[in-house]
Amino acid sequence: MTADAAIARLVAHPRFRAAVATLAREHDRTVADIVTLTEIPAPPFGEAARAAAYLGMLRAHGLEEVEQDAVGNVMGRRRGTGNGRAVVVAAHLDTVFPAGTDVRVRREGTRLFAPGVGDDTRSLAVNLAFLRAMDAAGLRTRADLLLLGDVGEEGAGDLRGVRHFFTEGRHRGQVDAFLTVDSPEVDRIVIGGIGSKRWRVAFRGPGGHSFGAFGLVNPSYALARAALALAALPAPAGSQTTHCVSRIGGGTSVNAIPDEVWMEVDLRSRSAEALARLEAGFLDSLQAAVAAENAARSTREGGITLALTPIGDRPAGETPPDAPIVRLATAAVAAQGFVPRHEYSSTDANIPMSLGIPAIKIGSGGRGGRAHSLEEWIDVEPGESLRGMAASLATILAVAGVELE
Amino acid sequence: MTADAAIARLVAHPRFRAAVATLAREHDRTVADIVTLTEIPAPPFGEAARAAAYLGMLRAHGLEEVEQDAVGNVMGRRRGTGNGRAVVVAAHLDTVFPAGTDVRVRREGTRLFAPGVGDDTRSLAVNLAFLRAMDAAGLRTRADLLLLGDVGEEGAGDLRGVRHFFTEGRHRGQVDAFLTVDSPEVDRIVIGGIGSKRWRVAFRGPGGHSFGAFGLVNPSYALARAALALAALPAPAGSQTTHCVSRIGGGTSVNAIPDEVWMEVDLRSRSAEALARLEAGFLDSLQAAVAAENAARSTREGGITLALTPIGDRPAGETPPDAPIVRLATAAVAAQGFVPRHEYSSTDANIPMSLGIPAIKIGSGGRGGRAHSLEEWIDVEPGESLRGMAASLATILAVAGVELE
Repeated sequence: MTADAAIARLVAHPRFRAAVATLAREHDRTVADIVTLTEIPAPPFGEAARAAAYLGMLRAHGLEEVEQDAVGNVMGRRRGTGNGRAVVVAAHLDTVFPAGTDVRVRREGTRLFAPGVGDDTRSLAVNLAFLRAMDAAGLRTRADLLLLGDVGEEGAGDLRGVRHFFTEGRHRGQVDAFLTVDSPEVDRIVIGGIGSKRWRVAFRGPGGHSFGAFGLVNPSYALARAALALAALPAPAGSQTTHCVSRIGGGTSVNAIPDEVWMEVDLRSRSAEALARLEAGFLDSLQAAVAAENAARSTREGGITLALTPIGDRPAGETPPDAPIVRLATAAVAAQGFVPRHEYSSTDANIPMSLGIPAIKIGSGGRGGRAHSLEEWIDVEPGESLRGMAASLATILAVAGVELE
Repeated sequence: MTADAAIARLVAHPRFRAAVATLAREHDRTVADIVTLTEIPAPPFGEAARAAAYLGMLRAHGLEEVEQDAVGNVMGRRRGTGNGRAVVVAAHLDTVFPAGTDVRVRREGTRLFAPGVGDDTRSLAVNLAFLRAMDAAGLRTRADLLLLGDVGEEGAGDLRGVRHFFTEGRHRGQVDAFLTVDSPEVDRIVIGGIGSKRWRVAFRGPGGHSFGAFGLVNPSYALARAALALAALPAPAGSQTTHCVSRIGGGTSVNAIPDEVWMEVDLRSRSAEALARLEAGFLDSLQAAVAAENAARSTREGGITLALTPIGDRPAGETPPDAPIVRLATAAVAAQGFVPRHEYSSTDANIPMSLGIPAIKIGSGGRGGRAHSLEEWIDVEPGESLRGMAASLATILAVAGVELE
């Protein structure tokens, strides 16, 4: 049976219709959950309060093995009819907004305004709605569903929640597919993860008085050489490989040779191999830049040295367009009248993709905008919202092997 | 009469001996004035409270025309026997220490510890002691003495007090010599002013997402080119010409091409001409760096532009070693048993030197150390202190044309 046929059969089935009717009937509750969760701050590395609330919600939804892991992810199991292999349905707990941000929700008609409301708090609430809909309709899947609220998706969080889940967590090795529900749009199916490596590079030297110690090595010039070397590294367009010196700083006074300057560098690629090659070239060029400065000026008080700190490591990866998970999601989105698109981005799915586990990002339904800004909003208008939720629910059920009769 | 002979005659004179006896008798009062003034904070651009106190002290010492000028300098005149031409005797009011620094004086034996105690607060008090000593001994000079407590000598103050005095003040054009009493050491006579020009250079561009906008111009690379161009500019050792990229900064996020980065640059020379040539080369190289970056990457969202802010301008200058002011000071220092040295530095004397007015820096006497640090100290032990004060008092009297019989 093709993916289109499987989805057509699913969405026409009375149990699926019953599930969608439950989503509609419970929509106000879902919106109330969005507001409740959005108003619990979840800054980077500060997800604990929201995690605790979500843990309680997972338990209230009747899941088994509800627990919090060592890095702060919360999860629970909806047992399937099969052998215990699992499909993960995730949403991330963290927002990009720092502690102290006003996260109260303002409602205007069917629009909700608040930092983080769409990225990714709506998905946390929608995943609970999916559980209620499946339960009410008696929908079972062969695979277990592992509902996951994960930490550390944004920025410096560096995917640490899902990374831990797949590398240290007790479910590692038992997962056959990973679906992250992230942001409202259901038509944009992310099937590839842009890999990124981020480094903070400090160049250190003896420093000294700008006049009295003139002639000593200056770490600013080593940094300058390294920056220009990075700018000149090849960036093959086919693999969408990019590099950037993004932030710089250092020095103590206008009348002093700095004893330390630093730069932050962002390296990305769709291709894990191209990313590794780029990073190797970058690290080589740092050594060359230091050597050149140590040769250009006096090291009698000490030479320039490097201090490298990794500040980001998101593996590249992709799920092939013809993988069943992609075909099913594409069919499920199309079945609700959307025009599905396959995209590359950096999401929680990067981690399983990089491990060869089928993984995609799907949507929570409805419209939204201005993510990562204080004006972030979503529209919870029921028609559009439910159409999107139906697409994602169908994807989850199909990927997990729904039992129909 | 040679300088040595003139000084020898002066220091042997009963009136000079009487003046030195007054310094000795009043030493405790001088120390008390040091403590009083040190404990009035005088951070950069915040000298008002100390200036007001010093204004009162100048008035109490019987000076005429005691006043504060438009930039905050305080001054008064001790009338001479001549035609009203003047010799300035200055000390600077400001310290390098920011508002809020604990400036209470701690005394251990003959040592006083406090930020700014030696640089240059001691000199403010010592100049008052000189007035009392001259008055008590009936010592008159042909030139008027203009006692000056000036603002803005340190760092970003950029010599604004003395600059104003000589370019805008009402005494400009009437000054024949300038003596700044700055820091304790009397053996180190500053006869040349290192000129400096300081610039803050911002490189601005359109910015953008490090991945999505890859290929756009990046201001970090323009800065890097400009830094390396500066490092490569000639710095003729004979003129003690130096340059330095001292502080850098900019960028907003590791995943963004910066929309602005900046660097601070310090250019110095003993030679005004070499400094001007260096600065012209630097400014040219900035334009070249911007042009190179705009040629290297896409300007479709806008090109790199420059924003230049001058943050320091201290003119170079020198008083010839054979100028009478230098010969007299050298002889006066030697007459007290010190080994005089001629030095170049950046002091309030830069300004009159650059205008061709004979100017040097002399000392307030005694020992001291750790200037510009929170552990700054001076030693007010009377023997060494009075020997130094006698040297500087003799210099002032000789330069101003003391009337002996």
